[in-house]
Amino acid sequence: MRKRIIIFGATGSIGTQTLEIIDKNKDKFELIGVASKGNVDKLKAIAEKFKVPYVALFDNKPFSLSYNAKTFYGKEGLEQLANLDSDLVIMSISGIEAVYPLKISIERGANIAIATKEIVVACGDLIKKWLKKSKSKLIPIDSEHSALFQLINSFRKKNIEKIILTASGGPFWNKSREEMEKTKLEEVLKHPTWKMGYKTTIDSANLVNKGLEVIEAHFFFNFDYNSIKVMIHPQSIVHGMIELVDGSIIAQMAYPDMRIPIQYALFYPQRPKIKWSPFDLKNQKLEFYDVDYDKFPALQLAYEVGKKGGVYPAIFAISDEVLVELFIKGIINFKDIVSFIKYALESWKEFKEIENLEQIEYIKNWIKNLIKQKVGYNL
Amino acid sequence: MRKRIIIFGATGSIGTQTLEIIDKNKDKFELIGVASKGNVDKLKAIAEKFKVPYVALFDNKPFSLSYNAKTFYGKEGLEQLANLDSDLVIMSISGIEAVYPLKISIERGANIAIATKEIVVACGDLIKKWLKKSKSKLIPIDSEHSALFQLINSFRKKNIEKIILTASGGPFWNKSREEMEKTKLEEVLKHPTWKMGYKTTIDSANLVNKGLEVIEAHFFFNFDYNSIKVMIHPQSIVHGMIELVDGSIIAQMAYPDMRIPIQYALFYPQRPKIKWSPFDLKNQKLEFYDVDYDKFPALQLAYEVGKKGGVYPAIFAISDEVLVELFIKGIINFKDIVSFIKYALESWKEFKEIENLEQIEYIKNWIKNLIKQKVGYNL
Repeated sequence: MRKRIIIFGATGSIGTQTLEIIDKNKDKFELIGVASKGNVDKLKAIAEKFKVPYVALFDNKPFSLSYNAKTFYGKEGLEQLANLDSDLVIMSISGIEAVYPLKISIERGANIAIATKEIVVACGDLIKKWLKKSKSKLIPIDSEHSALFQLINSFRKKNIEKIILTASGGPFWNKSREEMEKTKLEEVLKHPTWKMGYKTTIDSANLVNKGLEVIEAHFFFNFDYNSIKVMIHPQSIVHGMIELVDGSIIAQMAYPDMRIPIQYALFYPQRPKIKWSPFDLKNQKLEFYDVDYDKFPALQLAYEVGKKGGVYPAIFAISDEVLVELFIKGIINFKDIVSFIKYALESWKEFKEIENLEQIEYIKNWIKNLIKQKVGYNL
Repeated sequence: MRKRIIIFGATGSIGTQTLEIIDKNKDKFELIGVASKGNVDKLKAIAEKFKVPYVALFDNKPFSLSYNAKTFYGKEGLEQLANLDSDLVIMSISGIEAVYPLKISIERGANIAIATKEIVVACGDLIKKWLKKSKSKLIPIDSEHSALFQLINSFRKKNIEKIILTASGGPFWNKSREEMEKTKLEEVLKHPTWKMGYKTTIDSANLVNKGLEVIEAHFFFNFDYNSIKVMIHPQSIVHGMIELVDGSIIAQMAYPDMRIPIQYALFYPQRPKIKWSPFDLKNQKLEFYDVDYDKFPALQLAYEVGKKGGVYPAIFAISDEVLVELFIKGIINFKDIVSFIKYALESWKEFKEIENLEQIEYIKNWIKNLIKQKVGYNL
């Protein structure tokens, strides 16, 4: 029997690559639902190509398909899609809205391959609560977490002292802090090794992305923050490492191609035999450096936020989401992203723990207001 | 209850490091027997220090100890030691003679941590036969095989397409073939990364050692020779790698310190929590290159010999053992080692399969005779 798949975020970078894998493995996967936030033309093209029976668009722009399909719209539309019976949900829709269909998918007991780190960071405590009452299993799609997931499952947690996430360092790791801070959007979008969506590419340039991933790693693997380490590894060949109790290190390497961790999640618990980017170590030089925390204060901030727990990771993730949008629109500078995240964290004086999704909405509106006052732009 | 240990080759490099580990873990290990080929003074010192109740010396030179101990001598002496009840036998005595106590240890059902690759290569088929009738488990001590043993056990064979052994390349990998071939003993003994015994250091310089290890890997892990790869990795940080069916690679890294794989074998199946050489990837550059088989014909030869199987790996291993001794004595040149191994392989016209240990003795004498005729030196 084929695995029945729903993709949230079908038109994005992860979605597109997921579809490529499904397309090559039609005997193994059945695409029963696709959703996107916007980009109706691309969503329609996907639906038409795969004859997907259920199609949801977050934006309320009605569209029609040439074949017999059910269409859903808006926030409720995504929730209706999540309510369909499926074996695996690919959660790669960007932003905090993804948490609603995630909640339903968990309640339904589907396995979830998750690429949307923002919701894991912002709603980690809630997700853990939901998972306790469900048979759902979360499988990370991020290459670093996929690597760690594989390594930890294979070597068992009791033998592991530390987990190490690698960071390419983005386009600025070997540039000066001044150069980095006065940079323009187009330079930020030049990621040296990975092809990713805008949000992740921008987050990678100031290491906010790595900060989110540290908190995500804590969520997935339950290691203490002092046992989660980040190393700069400009070649992006080693994606994750574990340090064993005897001091030896096990590293997972692969060509930086997101199809590799995506297909791992799709086929899990089987290991797929398909090689997307065959990889040869021949003539490779793999370098590793410590992170310069002065230059990348976002990462230090993420550790602090993670250790504090409660509402703070949510403020970190949601304010970054709001600020990246402002940076893309040219309203704020690159360096403002991190300083305004810090400002938001310092300004928060309300509840400390998150107990329901309304609080997430509240935080989002609170942040929008705060930033609006600061930059004078109506979000 | 403490693990009762017997060490064959207690005075050598592996033996000394094994004793260091046992010394730090007296609550976990009980040293009940030690043996060496020669070096009676060092053997006596070890016996005295650990108050070892059973002590065996291959050379027939009687010695006495200040405490109440039983002493054994000669080939029979080693066999008597092997006959003692023990939980783990460390087999690190150099040369083919080690096979006799190994056979007894297997028959007795002890686990065996094995560092003597010569016997695995020369007597692999016989050892497999003995193991079939025993509950013994063989645990490799070589750093490469220890790494692969850990990786294969953790990731399971069905998910693995290829195993990769790393080779530092020795002192000559980036020198010309001419430079290498006219080299003197003292240069051969300058290994860039590992501190090892003479034999292994010399074997590392012409990659005979890596050839033996390829055959050893085939013996331990039962991968086809086409699925066993060697890569030059001058830093000796990555010891072994597996390539999974999805093209990703898992690597085991550790500081090049033999105490790490030795203690792994001692504590197996537990993973020890002791760090002998804490290791930080910070500022490391790890390089990987393909092997130049023209420059290192010994490795190509080992693959051929391994694929042929039967008696040929034994001729390869035993002739090398004889020839290294002649090189140390200054009777032959460095480059003669490999060309005489080749000559021995080409000259052999007798039985093709090894069915008993007498044949091993026969091969050894045949090789000694052959080389004697060639170099005019009485071995």
